[in-house]
Amino acid sequence: MLRYIGVDAGGTSTRAGVVTAEGECLGLGHAGSGNPVSSGPDYAARQVMLASQRALQAAACPPEQICAAVAAMAGGRVITDTGWLTKAAGSEGLRFQFRLESDLHATFASATADSDGYAVVSGTGSLAVRVRAGEIDLVSDGIGWLFGDTGSGFWIGQQVARAALAGLDNRGEPTRLSVDLLDYLDLPPAGDGRIEGRPRAVQEIIDVLYGWRPVELGRLAPLAFGAAGDAVADDIVARAAQSLATTLGAVRTAEVSGPIVLGGSVLIRQPRMVEELQARSDPFDEVLYTHDGLVGAASLALQRSGESVDQAVFDRLLHTVSEQRLRAEQDIEH
Amino acid sequence: MLRYIGVDAGGTSTRAGVVTAEGECLGLGHAGSGNPVSSGPDYAARQVMLASQRALQAAACPPEQICAAVAAMAGGRVITDTGWLTKAAGSEGLRFQFRLESDLHATFASATADSDGYAVVSGTGSLAVRVRAGEIDLVSDGIGWLFGDTGSGFWIGQQVARAALAGLDNRGEPTRLSVDLLDYLDLPPAGDGRIEGRPRAVQEIIDVLYGWRPVELGRLAPLAFGAAGDAVADDIVARAAQSLATTLGAVRTAEVSGPIVLGGSVLIRQPRMVEELQARSDPFDEVLYTHDGLVGAASLALQRSGESVDQAVFDRLLHTVSEQRLRAEQDIEH
Repeated sequence: MLRYIGVDAGGTSTRAGVVTAEGECLGLGHAGSGNPVSSGPDYAARQVMLASQRALQAAACPPEQICAAVAAMAGGRVITDTGWLTKAAGSEGLRFQFRLESDLHATFASATADSDGYAVVSGTGSLAVRVRAGEIDLVSDGIGWLFGDTGSGFWIGQQVARAALAGLDNRGEPTRLSVDLLDYLDLPPAGDGRIEGRPRAVQEIIDVLYGWRPVELGRLAPLAFGAAGDAVADDIVARAAQSLATTLGAVRTAEVSGPIVLGGSVLIRQPRMVEELQARSDPFDEVLYTHDGLVGAASLALQRSGESVDQAVFDRLLHTVSEQRLRAEQDIEH
Repeated sequence: MLRYIGVDAGGTSTRAGVVTAEGECLGLGHAGSGNPVSSGPDYAARQVMLASQRALQAAACPPEQICAAVAAMAGGRVITDTGWLTKAAGSEGLRFQFRLESDLHATFASATADSDGYAVVSGTGSLAVRVRAGEIDLVSDGIGWLFGDTGSGFWIGQQVARAALAGLDNRGEPTRLSVDLLDYLDLPPAGDGRIEGRPRAVQEIIDVLYGWRPVELGRLAPLAFGAAGDAVADDIVARAAQSLATTLGAVRTAEVSGPIVLGGSVLIRQPRMVEELQARSDPFDEVLYTHDGLVGAASLALQRSGESVDQAVFDRLLHTVSEQRLRAEQDIEH
């Protein structure tokens, strides 16, 4: 009985799943951050091993039965050298070697078993990726909030803050976003008061927002959608959609056709953003949504071993990973 | 013989000058950061006292002759409570009390003794201010790079980086800024290579730039001016100028006429920005440029004591502060 391990090694947590060639997930395991860039290779490797051993235990699967293991993670060029992970596996008595895959590939593979297609993600960050013949072929954007990630949750949230402040500061169009931002931050409505020559509401908002980490500005993105009909808010949404369409357009080519996988909180939770993206893009062959990155990692583990992941196998992966997760949560509750 | 002290208390250094009612600067003194927000009130107060005592010493002026003292500093609402500074003066045996003034007011007063007018600054940050009847009346923008400072050196530099990267990432117009940025960062020219699906030059640029503090992006602002004729670069300059015009427009009113004082590295060093700002603004009565903030602080010390600061007094302040500075620098060299 051959078994496969998929690991979704993220910046906050790592999850592993033991699956069969038919796509049945037999057990899951959790651990801490498995990203070697953000957590250091030693710590990250231990988390990947810990999650894997817990998954093996939950699946009642002896390590000898594992014939392939894939760990999906962000982190660029570290991926070319897997020594840090192989060493950790050896010291834990695990004989199998992890193959590392890009988390972007796992994102795509979490929605489809196709070997060609595209993904566009708008969560805290944003990017588009082209997958060709089962490999990441081209990536656009995803270069962080300071230099890119246009159309992401951060980008929208920052635009909301800037527009709300400009409206109060007499520099921009009056906008409902000013009212909504003050309300969201539990601040009093704007009035005539000034603090050292500056409108009081402007000073009070920046006093709060400079206490946030910049990346937290993504929390303000829903305000842009909530103020639909307000010209300033609608303009922010339209520019975000155009930016995502441009990013997606940057990776699309007539040579590669396949599904377009949408992911990230903005595209998952805001149907309007999907509509506006489609309205600004070449027609989509098929629209899919990302699922659990662990499904993608497990699917890649099967594909990399030459197992056929057809729709039935893929659907089984999706459902059984979901079932196992529910079971694990119930175990914690009881 | 009555004497006056002006202090320019900045985030990196504090300078004090002892002046006569006729505007003659008799001596200067230096010390460390005198900003109570960035350095803490105890440390800042000591620096203000140290700079003042050194200036008194250089001017051979006994403290008893000081009839008024002004310290100009950023830092918003701390300015309403001067206890931290009065206490420090007392413990040093200095009998005079400092009156605190906004550094924005000193900026305006460094260029003119008029009691009405405007200042617009574009350095690392950007803002506009209206002065009416010798007081700061209204301020627009100046709320920092994350939420405002549109048209500032930071803003221009960030736009340069974003446009250069978008051009290389297939998301934006091709632009000379991509070539110039790679050159500026001593990176090889862009080629066909990819790093994990991303154009090599994009990855290499962000690897360098994420090592900078965000505020350092202002270093890239001159690239926008250097690439004049490039449509993308010209668009950045035009949008910066429009933003500054909007910020200035936000504080202008028919009820207040007077000179428009321009300051900050972008407006001082890029004559093109001044032209583009004027082209997008209501006519300027008179254009002046900011000088040493210490001149503004000293001028305010005289004005606040009811001394008349006419053009002759103002010019004398400007020249004698400058002379004393030169003398102080020569003393250090010899």
